Amino acid sequence: MTLPTFAGVLVPVLTPFKPDGAPDAGRFAAFCRWLLDQGADGLAVFGTTSEANSMSAGERMRLLDHLVAAGIPAAKLMPGTGACSMTEAAELAGHAVRHGCGGVLQLPPFYYKGMTDDGIFAFVSGVIERVASPALQVYLYHIPPVAVVGYSLDLVGRLIKAHPATVVGLKDSSGDWKNTAALLERYPGFAVFPGSEVFLLDGLRQGAVGCITASGNVNVPGISKVYQNWRGPQADALQAEITSLRKMLNAYPMVPALKRIVAHYHSDPDWAAVRPPMLPLGEAQAKALLAELARIGFSLGEPPRKAA
Amino acid sequence: MTLPTFAGVLVPVLTPFKPDGAPDAGRFAAFCRWLLDQGADGLAVFGTTSEANSMSAGERMRLLDHLVAAGIPAAKLMPGTGACSMTEAAELAGHAVRHGCGGVLQLPPFYYKGMTDDGIFAFVSGVIERVASPALQVYLYHIPPVAVVGYSLDLVGRLIKAHPATVVGLKDSSGDWKNTAALLERYPGFAVFPGSEVFLLDGLRQGAVGCITASGNVNVPGISKVYQNWRGPQADALQAEITSLRKMLNAYPMVPALKRIVAHYHSDPDWAAVRPPMLPLGEAQAKALLAELARIGFSLGEPPRKAA
Repeated sequence: MTLPTFAGVLVPVLTPFKPDGAPDAGRFAAFCRWLLDQGADGLAVFGTTSEANSMSAGERMRLLDHLVAAGIPAAKLMPGTGACSMTEAAELAGHAVRHGCGGVLQLPPFYYKGMTDDGIFAFVSGVIERVASPALQVYLYHIPPVAVVGYSLDLVGRLIKAHPATVVGLKDSSGDWKNTAALLERYPGFAVFPGSEVFLLDGLRQGAVGCITASGNVNVPGISKVYQNWRGPQADALQAEITSLRKMLNAYPMVPALKRIVAHYHSDPDWAAVRPPMLPLGEAQAKALLAELARIGFSLGEPPRKAA
Repeated sequence: MTLPTFAGVLVPVLTPFKPDGAPDAGRFAAFCRWLLDQGADGLAVFGTTSEANSMSAGERMRLLDHLVAAGIPAAKLMPGTGACSMTEAAELAGHAVRHGCGGVLQLPPFYYKGMTDDGIFAFVSGVIERVASPALQVYLYHIPPVAVVGYSLDLVGRLIKAHPATVVGLKDSSGDWKNTAALLERYPGFAVFPGSEVFLLDGLRQGAVGCITASGNVNVPGISKVYQNWRGPQADALQAEITSLRKMLNAYPMVPALKRIVAHYHSDPDWAAVRPPMLPLGEAQAKALLAELARIGFSLGEPPRKAA
């Protein structure tokens, strides 16, 4: 059995919190719906940008329950199942599979440092064995700037070989184009997503299937335009536009900045809330960011319908 | 109200796993009892050496339930409540408080990197506010070589000042004596534990209250002798002995090595099991380690009574 793999522009969806700090399931589902309406090809909920690791496993599973109940198509969902423990990662992945999610995004175990490829191989294999479902589609999540622990090029190959029907892709948030290019060259047919739209066009030209990118939360239309037109004459110009916006955003703490943008353009101040250890953008930074965006004529389009 | 703080030799207890990978609660309780019988002053269960972060929150809480049910005095327990999410850390800490544990050992949120002291302050304060119990005694767990994220000297002072009845101590596993010395100098009365017995005597002489050390799993009597006699004429010689054993152990992956030692000396091969991403010691390494120990006449004493 070959299951369809994800492709296109996937968004690691921001997670809204209520004033008391609890995840806001209604606002979250409305935002997911809005991202799909904007043209997102998939939603990588519970990634780094989602502050997933600032939520307990139970909080993440209840949010996923709510999304599916609210009618977000499970096939469009690639929930992050990152956890330091094999048992918790397997619990999250099994829960996603039971909901019919199109895939899961699996961090390596990120607490212990200096572990061997053999040890990380045993972890991922242990998760897959515990879930024990042919419907499980694992996308490896390589983000050494945050997780420190990563998937080496060799380890990726070993995992594909050991689990060919299950380990189907990878999000490369290394920020290192050489690593992305090496993955594309060594593992043709493996679904590689650069972790930033800055590498989207270069990636597509070398075999990447799309990108999974934080700034998708505020720029699905722009990024999708590159994806839709990458073989066309406008591709480089369109790429330059999205690269320019991303570089502006990179000057700010990404998650607080994105949330502040959503709060501002959707006139919904509660959106700015983050969970510690993150903190909201300071007022001076927020002003500078919003002024930069105003200067380039940035727009977010119609806000989502308010959650019931 | 002033609650008693921990002092002396605390052991971050190894967690035994069954052949199917599940935590072995019976063997764990027997080992905890044995460590106390050997003279351990407290048990820092669910630390780094315990592979706590390779277990789900539920697995950790069920093990703690079992320990207390098995008669291990809760006042002797300082469970690790490390989690990347404030909600999960608070759940673990609240559970420990309800059991009457003498304290908890709190990692900073370790997934996101480059967070500010303000953000980590908000995280720890958030945990304390959520537990909302005067019985909560927090020991900060500073272990940047593994967690990467740590508690700066200034942040420690801010946390003590904000929560004087709650933030009562710190385990310093930085491996940096200068940091330990600075903590002792700046925060007199704060219960500082070096994270290795190598710094025990130096620490005690400058105001430390003991140590919390991995090798306590196999050397409580030796380390306790330094603690008991640190003002006596033999102190330096006793310290040299335990430093020498620790330096031998440091040449091996610590957790697999300690487990292999317990398995060997207690004739209980299942003890060698670790959870991925850790792997058991290879046979050549195990042979070399056991030969070194035999050469120095190492002994573990009587094994614990087999768990029912």
